[in-house]
Order: sequence, then structure tokens, then C-alpha cells
Amino acid sequence: MSGRKYAIGVDFGTESGRAVLVDVTDGREVTTAVYPYANGVIDERLPGTDILLEADWALQDPQDYIDVFKNTIPAVLEESGEDPENVIGLGIDFTACTVLPTKADGTPLCTLPDYRQNPHAWVKLWKHHAAQPEANKLNEIAATLGYDFLSRYGGKISSEWLVPKVWQILDEAPEVYEAADRFIEAADWVVWQLTGVETRNNCTAGYKAIWSKKDGYPPKEFFKALDPRLENLVDEKLSREIAYLGERAGNLTLEAAGWTGLKPGTAVAVANVDAHVSVPAAGVAEVGRMVIIMGTSNCHMLLGDQERIVPGMCGYVEDGIIPGYFGYEAGQSCVGDHFAWFTENCVPEFYEQEAVIKGVDIHTSLEEKAAALSPGESGLLALDWWNGNRSILVDVDLTGLLIGQTLATKPEDIYRTLIEATAYGTRIIIESFEDSGIPVKEIVATGGLPDRNRLLMQIYADVTGREIKVAAAKQTPALGSAMFGAVAAGKAAGGYGSIYEASQVMAHLRDEVYVPNPEHKEIYNKLYAEYKLLHDYFGRGENDVMKRLKGIRAEVRQNKSEAVRG
Amino acid sequence: MSGRKYAIGVDFGTESGRAVLVDVTDGREVTTAVYPYANGVIDERLPGTDILLEADWALQDPQDYIDVFKNTIPAVLEESGEDPENVIGLGIDFTACTVLPTKADGTPLCTLPDYRQNPHAWVKLWKHHAAQPEANKLNEIAATLGYDFLSRYGGKISSEWLVPKVWQILDEAPEVYEAADRFIEAADWVVWQLTGVETRNNCTAGYKAIWSKKDGYPPKEFFKALDPRLENLVDEKLSREIAYLGERAGNLTLEAAGWTGLKPGTAVAVANVDAHVSVPAAGVAEVGRMVIIMGTSNCHMLLGDQERIVPGMCGYVEDGIIPGYFGYEAGQSCVGDHFAWFTENCVPEFYEQEAVIKGVDIHTSLEEKAAALSPGESGLLALDWWNGNRSILVDVDLTGLLIGQTLATKPEDIYRTLIEATAYGTRIIIESFEDSGIPVKEIVATGGLPDRNRLLMQIYADVTGREIKVAAAKQTPALGSAMFGAVAAGKAAGGYGSIYEASQVMAHLRDEVYVPNPEHKEIYNKLYAEYKLLHDYFGRGENDVMKRLKGIRAEVRQNKSEAVRG
Repeated sequence: MSGRKYAIGVDFGTESGRAVLVDVTDGREVTTAVYPYANGVIDERLPGTDILLEADWALQDPQDYIDVFKNTIPAVLEESGEDPENVIGLGIDFTACTVLPTKADGTPLCTLPDYRQNPHAWVKLWKHHAAQPEANKLNEIAATLGYDFLSRYGGKISSEWLVPKVWQILDEAPEVYEAADRFIEAADWVVWQLTGVETRNNCTAGYKAIWSKKDGYPPKEFFKALDPRLENLVDEKLSREIAYLGERAGNLTLEAAGWTGLKPGTAVAVANVDAHVSVPAAGVAEVGRMVIIMGTSNCHMLLGDQERIVPGMCGYVEDGIIPGYFGYEAGQSCVGDHFAWFTENCVPEFYEQEAVIKGVDIHTSLEEKAAALSPGESGLLALDWWNGNRSILVDVDLTGLLIGQTLATKPEDIYRTLIEATAYGTRIIIESFEDSGIPVKEIVATGGLPDRNRLLMQIYADVTGREIKVAAAKQTPALGSAMFGAVAAGKAAGGYGSIYEASQVMAHLRDEVYVPNPEHKEIYNKLYAEYKLLHDYFGRGENDVMKRLKGIRAEVRQNKSEAVRG
Repeated sequence: MSGRKYAIGVDFGTESGRAVLVDVTDGREVTTAVYPYANGVIDERLPGTDILLEADWALQDPQDYIDVFKNTIPAVLEESGEDPENVIGLGIDFTACTVLPTKADGTPLCTLPDYRQNPHAWVKLWKHHAAQPEANKLNEIAATLGYDFLSRYGGKISSEWLVPKVWQILDEAPEVYEAADRFIEAADWVVWQLTGVETRNNCTAGYKAIWSKKDGYPPKEFFKALDPRLENLVDEKLSREIAYLGERAGNLTLEAAGWTGLKPGTAVAVANVDAHVSVPAAGVAEVGRMVIIMGTSNCHMLLGDQERIVPGMCGYVEDGIIPGYFGYEAGQSCVGDHFAWFTENCVPEFYEQEAVIKGVDIHTSLEEKAAALSPGESGLLALDWWNGNRSILVDVDLTGLLIGQTLATKPEDIYRTLIEATAYGTRIIIESFEDSGIPVKEIVATGGLPDRNRLLMQIYADVTGREIKVAAAKQTPALGSAMFGAVAAGKAAGGYGSIYEASQVMAHLRDEVYVPNPEHKEIYNKLYAEYKLLHDYFGRGENDVMKRLKGIRAEVRQNKSEAVRG
């Protein structure tokens, strides 16, 4: 017996779940195991049936989540050779809002024969976008009736969030709504399965279910205004009892111990969200340092010690990231996706061949070429709205723009410009925070991009004028979950008294720091001024051409599909 | 002896010269021969020397022009088997403004040993752009002093034209200016070589040398204001004696008869310009039908029976295309070049592979994909300014724009959008004419593109709302030159009394007509309204971001090259 203590973090992603066994004394990621969901993202037909799903649907199978526990935790234990006795705590994080209807005992409706063939009985994944009509109605009603909770969410409740998704069930499958005793975040549901205790974490409640520590949920009158049948949604099918990040949700049941090989009674932390749990895992538990999770999209997480209305945020929640702070979240809906789109659709054959000859992938090859350019040398500028604008304009109907092309424009000019555009998008978010009195002195990056693209990191430093550090963890969310597992276990068991303490010991940054280049920063200041001008012109209603083009496209496509149907 | 009569047209292009033997009775192109210039476009070093040319320089060797006559005319005669006796006339057309300094007898300065190593002694090709500083000064001085000839040229004299090019010689090589007895268009110079007679055609004088039938050249005071040494430029080194299109410049000399195998005394027409000579060859010798020469760029030629100031024209010249009419010229500087840029820089590898599998070239493959889209379906819009805007904004510093991209945007969406953008550019030119009282009822297309891209032709019809016919000739400019050759020969010799008569008989249109699709037209009306909004916003000074980006780029490049030099 080694005397060392361990915690396990389980990170539930979109396609798979991943467990990491972490050394509590130093945050070392000892072993990792991944389990790809057998049913993956369900967006074409219901498993085992011929039932087709409509466009914008995205479901999951809750059994896949249980199978993550059954497969990955035994694997990390076995590979490490550690005694489960030394695993003091378990934490999980999840995509959100990913929500399912269950019976009162937690049984998912989709596992019951009566409902198995009803798509609305399954888990609605975060990227299920078919509740847009409900989101639109909700926003209109809330604005008309003057509910000020909208201001906590950049003025709009997303179709991805809990109330629109539940309302869609009521609209389209009232029998499922009726049969559901509970609507619960998958994050909380898996903790329920581990502990036998139903909890509701304050992070998803706050960011996804219009709850706040100060005001709770919106009043019954609001829900009644949406639909009289929703009047008692909170009391009947949600819960006003909220568990806080950093608390212990419960202890591992005998059954869950059997799934995992862990000891019954092991501490299980209150559930968390993948982005939010990354903040302490990136070593940030204080104001002034922004964590950016950089991947297909960017998620900006920031702590404030005061409540501020920041224009264009995704949301802010008291204690929503780290207890004692207001946790602010902003986002860019298209970052890595931009570069993936570009390499898939815009890179000529001889660039691909050149990359093969050089023996590197096309992203690396493009990065090399783009890195040889100086800021401003391409003569190009882009608006990074290929997938709409999340912050600070909160407008999914905005689209992309590229300006400045000449016959001499090369693919690497465009590639670099797309990177720069996402950096300007981050800068405008930072300025929105600072203008609202929340300082951003430094950036810590995590996610997939910082590892893969040094040019991008340097451009972000140059554009934002801030030093950027990079979180050391290979699996930042899982590390964060393990840290919360160690906090749930508590000091006496060898864990920590607070996430702040855990972060001090278990989270690390790499030695490398991206420092702004003063000359580049100066040129980028000029380019950013141009970006802002176009941002406001196209994004704030002066010329709504992007929306009109989308409208024309929608009309043309509808006519075309009607013509096809005959 | 067949009794049929023939004329020969020689078309001097940028890379080669081409002769076509044409049957005068029906315009049939009997035989064709091409001679690529041995020295091509001279833009790196002076032939036979180590003398490097600066950026933006483009020269030619006049010997290459003579070699065109020597090689192509004997070839078309031989291939046809016709007796030179039956060739009644010869016409030529040339790129313009392509200009050279000569001695009083027509000897090019660059053929004299004293000047052979001086780049300024050679032919300055139309696309020699190194006289931009002189053009800028000229425009400023003309505007300041209130010379109204600017209004004939869209407000600006181009650096491609005669006066800036001559002034550059004076600025940079006063010894060449001094030694030159004549500065003459290459078009007129080759006619001089054929006939022994120096003529100056009214087409290049009008479109390229600031001359007009009504006002002649600008006054001496103007030239003096440019540079006192230029005061007597017109009288000393140009000529006030102007020959008109449709006239006979002279008769073939014995020497030229030796080069060509034609009979001495054969009628030679006054020289013409490639674009302008295409108008009667496209069957247009009346008002209301616009000829568009569609190639790497678009050239729009239109006849009017009244003098009008049309905003943003390249120029208009009385009798400049067809005697008796005002010939209006407008242009788009980037059309085929757009698509070439796109296929070279933006088409992914698997598209290329797919084209190979289908056994078609990439343009054809893209056209097929783009043709499957409906107007408006891409959701995209572009400004076609990759190479600046010639008409109607007359601004070389404008650059491209693409708006509306999403993650679903495909290469064919962009390709079709670029085609549409050039069609909007043509429509804005048409509307500029009509707003000024010059009707455009129908379009006749010629050039390389109409043959190669049916989708493009249909889009132009749909966007402009006008029927488009296509000239039947394989070599429209050479046919036009042969027609002028037949007119120079005159009726008595078996030719024609006017270019109008020749056009009636010798010019033909294809049977196919591109007719606007009413549904497409309606959608394009909406998209065109968006195009105009962006056109005016970015093109008329409301947001000069394109110029500022160019300015930043220029500064960055300069700093970079200084840093390299150390």
C-alpha cells in the first residue's frame, strides 16, 4: 500500500466518456480510459427502430453513460495497479444542457417499453436544436412581460437549454411530459445512479435552467404564461433544492461499486459541467484570469467578485464555477470549426501534396505558411461568424465575411485571417468584461487547440495584448472532476477542504508563456479597429444583409423542396 | 480563279499575333495562323542583357510584330490555296495603349545600338503599370485646373494610357524622350510599316490619348502644367492629323508585300483596337445592343447617338467604334481572372480528383455543381473587386468581399457567387448607361468565356434581365479587322462602302439565345439590391476599410523588406 491517495474524474463528452485516475497529492494524471458511446449521437433514427428523427434533433442513450462507468473505471484501476482503497473520491462533468425525463426513482422513460419508441423519452443532447420555436416564444414572452432574468443571459435563453427542451416535449409529446416525474440534467442523473441520491447542481441550474442563488427559478406566473400546463413544472418535475459545486452529493452505492470496482461509500461530488470544471483545473480560482477552453468553439470563463450585467454573455451564476465568486461565461460558436471548414473546403490539391511530401498534416503545413506572414500582410480581414455569434451579439443568424481579397491572395492568407478573426472575437469579449468592471489581466488556455497550433496562441496574445499561459493537464475537465472528487472526500480522508486548496496543489500550468509582441500588437490594434467597425455595421442592425441572405436562401430551399415533392 | 474575294485581319494580342483569312462575301473564317512573340511580354529582364526591370514594368519587342506578318500571312494564304490577287484588303487590331518611341522614319529607338540597352526605348505594353505616379500627378493637376476632359474618362486618366507613359519616359529617361521624334501606338506603327504612311487612328487617340473629335488634344498649357518640357508634345512628337476608322490608311508597300506574299498596293485599313473592332464583328453597328467581350476581364462596348457623360466609363469617343456614333467603353477588371484565381487557390483535392474521374476539367466540374444550385441558395454574396473596380467606381484600390459563409458553405457555392458578382457588376454598368439616357436593350457576348461557361451566360441573362446572343466568329477581333480591310478596299474592289454594310453581311450570331428566367430574375433583383448596398458602402467612401487594409499591408511589406535588407 503506497500511502498515496487518488481521485477519479469522469468526463462525459459528446461522443464518449473518459475516466482519469489522478494523484491527489500533485494532480498527476496516472491512467486514462475512454469508452465511446455505443449509440453515439442519435440524430438519424431511434436505435433498433425505423423511426426517423427530424432535422436538428440530437439524442443519446442513458445506458451509454452507465457503460462508461462500467468500462472506464475498472480499466484505470487495473492499469494503475492501485488499490481502490486509496481512491478517496469521484467527480463527474458532463455536456450541458443534456437532459432526460425519468420516473420518480430515476428510471429513464426511454428504458420503459411504453416509451422506448417515443423520441421524446430519450436524452436530449446539448446540441438538440429542435426546440427553437419554444425558445423564440419564451424569449418573446419574457421580454414582453419584463422578466429581468434575461439580462443574466445576454438577453436570450438558448434553444439548447432546459426550459425550451422540456416545453418541446410538452408541445409534441404531452404523454411523455405527463409520464415524466422528473426532468433532470444527465450530469445529475449519473450522480444519482452512483449514489442513489437525486441532487441538482447549481452550475447547470444556473447556466441552463434560469435559476439563480438570489432569485431561484422564475415565478409560476412566468411558466403559466408559457403554457398553463407548465405552471408547476419546478415543483412537480424539477426541484428547488440545489446542491453546490464543491459539496459531496453522496456515497457510492453497493451497485455502483460493483460497476466500477471502487469501494462502496466512496465520496461522490456534486455534478459539474465540462467547461466550468476546467477552470480550477487550469489553476484559476481567483478574479482577473480568464480561462479559454479552445476547441471547435471557444468558451470563456471568468470569475468576478461582484455581480455585473455584462452585455452578450452566455450567462453568469453566483458560485457557478468556484464557490464565493460570480462565474461568468461567454463564448464563440466557431473556432476550430472554422479551420476545419477551411481545410475541408478551401485548400488546393498542391497544398495537400506538398504537406504529404513534407510529411506533416495539412493544418501543420498551413500553420507554417501562415506563420511566415506578418500581421497585416495578407490585407485581409474576416468576421468570424460562420456559425453565428454567441458573444457578444447573441445572434445565431449572423454569417461570415471575408474582405480584402486580391488576385494575389493565397490560401495561407485566408487561413491566418480566420485565426485572427477569432482572436478579435475573443478581444471584443474581453473588452465587454472590462467595460463592465470585471478585469481580465491574463489568459489561461486549455482545450485541444493550444496543443496543436502555436501560431494561433501567439496571435491571441498579440491581438488581446495579454499573456497567455496553457494548462498542463492532458485532460483538463477530467482533472477538474477528480479535484472536485478530492474535495467531496474532504481533508480528513486525504482530500481537500475546498476547490481553491485543491487547485493550488493539483492544477499546473506549462512553463511556456505566449507574450504579446509589441510591434504585432500595434498593427493588430489597427486591424481590430476595422474589425469592430464591420462587427457593429453588420452585427448591430445597420445592414442586416446577412439575415436577408439567409431569408432568401430559406425561401429558395423551401420552394425547391416543394418542387421536388411535386 | 474563284471569283470570291478575301480580306485578312491581323489581331495583335498580349502574347501572340493571329491572322485570319476571311471570305468577304459571307464572313467565313477560312484559315487562321498564330505566331507567338519570340520575346513575349518582357517583364523581368531586357532581352539579351542582364538589365532587370522594376516591378509593374511590361515591355515588348517591335520586331515581334513584323514577324507576325512574316509568319502568319504567308501561312493563311498557303493553307487556303487562294491567290493573293483575291485578297482585297488587310486590317489590323492591337492591344492598347501599347506605345513606342521612334525616329522620324518610324525606326524604333530600341533597335538603335545607342538605345537598345535602355528599357524606356522599348514598346511599353498596355499592362505596363509603372507610370502610376505620373498618372496620379496628371489627374491631380487636371482636376485642380478644372479640365473637363476628365469627365469623358470616368474622372480619371489611367496609368496605362499614352500621356502617363510618355511622361514616365521624360521623368526617368529624358535622353530617350529627347531622341524620340515620334511616340506612336503600336497599332499605328505596324500600319506604318505596312504602308510607309504614318497615321494616327481616332480610336486610340480618343480612348487612350485624351483626344476628341470636337476638342482635339488638351491645350499646350495643360501639358506645360505637367512639365514645361511637355508643352509641345503633341506638335513635336504626336500628330494633330487623325485618321478615322473605316478609312484606308494606305497601300501595301513592296517591302511589306515581300514579307506577306500579298500583292503590293493591297488596301490597308486604319488601325483599330482589339475590343473596339469586335463590335461590328459581333454584328453590332447600331444603338441599343451592348457588346461584352468576356475574358479575363470584361469590356463593355456600346453605341450612342448622343454625347452623354456616363459616370464611371473608361471613356467615350465620337466615331471611336463605328463612324457616326459615340462609342462608349466600360469595363470590369476581373472576370475570368476571378474564376482562375478560385480554381488555383480554393478548390480542394477531392474536387480535383472527382473531376479527373469524371474526365472533365475542374472548371466544367465546378460549373456542373454550381448549375445545380438555385439563385440565392448559397446564401452568399460577393463584391467582384479582386482586381479593383474599373467601372463604375474607377478605383484600383478596392478589393474583394465575400459575405454569408456558414460551416455548410461549399466550393461550388463560392464559385457560383463569384460568377454572380461579376454579373451584378455588369448590371450596374448597364444601369449607369440607361440612367444617362443610353439604352441597353440586348447583349451580344464574345470573347473566350461564352464558349466555355453556359452557366455564366445564363446567370448574366437572369441578372441583367436581358437576352444575350453570342457572336458566331471564332476569332472576333481578327474578323472585325478583316471587315475593316474590306471597307478600306472599297465597293469597287469587291469590298464594302462602310463598316455598317460589312457588318450586315460578314458578321453572324449563333442561333442560341440566353433568355432570362423570370423566377431567377426576381430572386436576383433582391440579391442585386444587397449588392448595390455593399457596393456603395464600400465603394463610395462610407467605409474605406479596403483602402486602409491595403495601406497597412503596404506598410508591413515595406518594413519587412527593409528588415530583410538589414
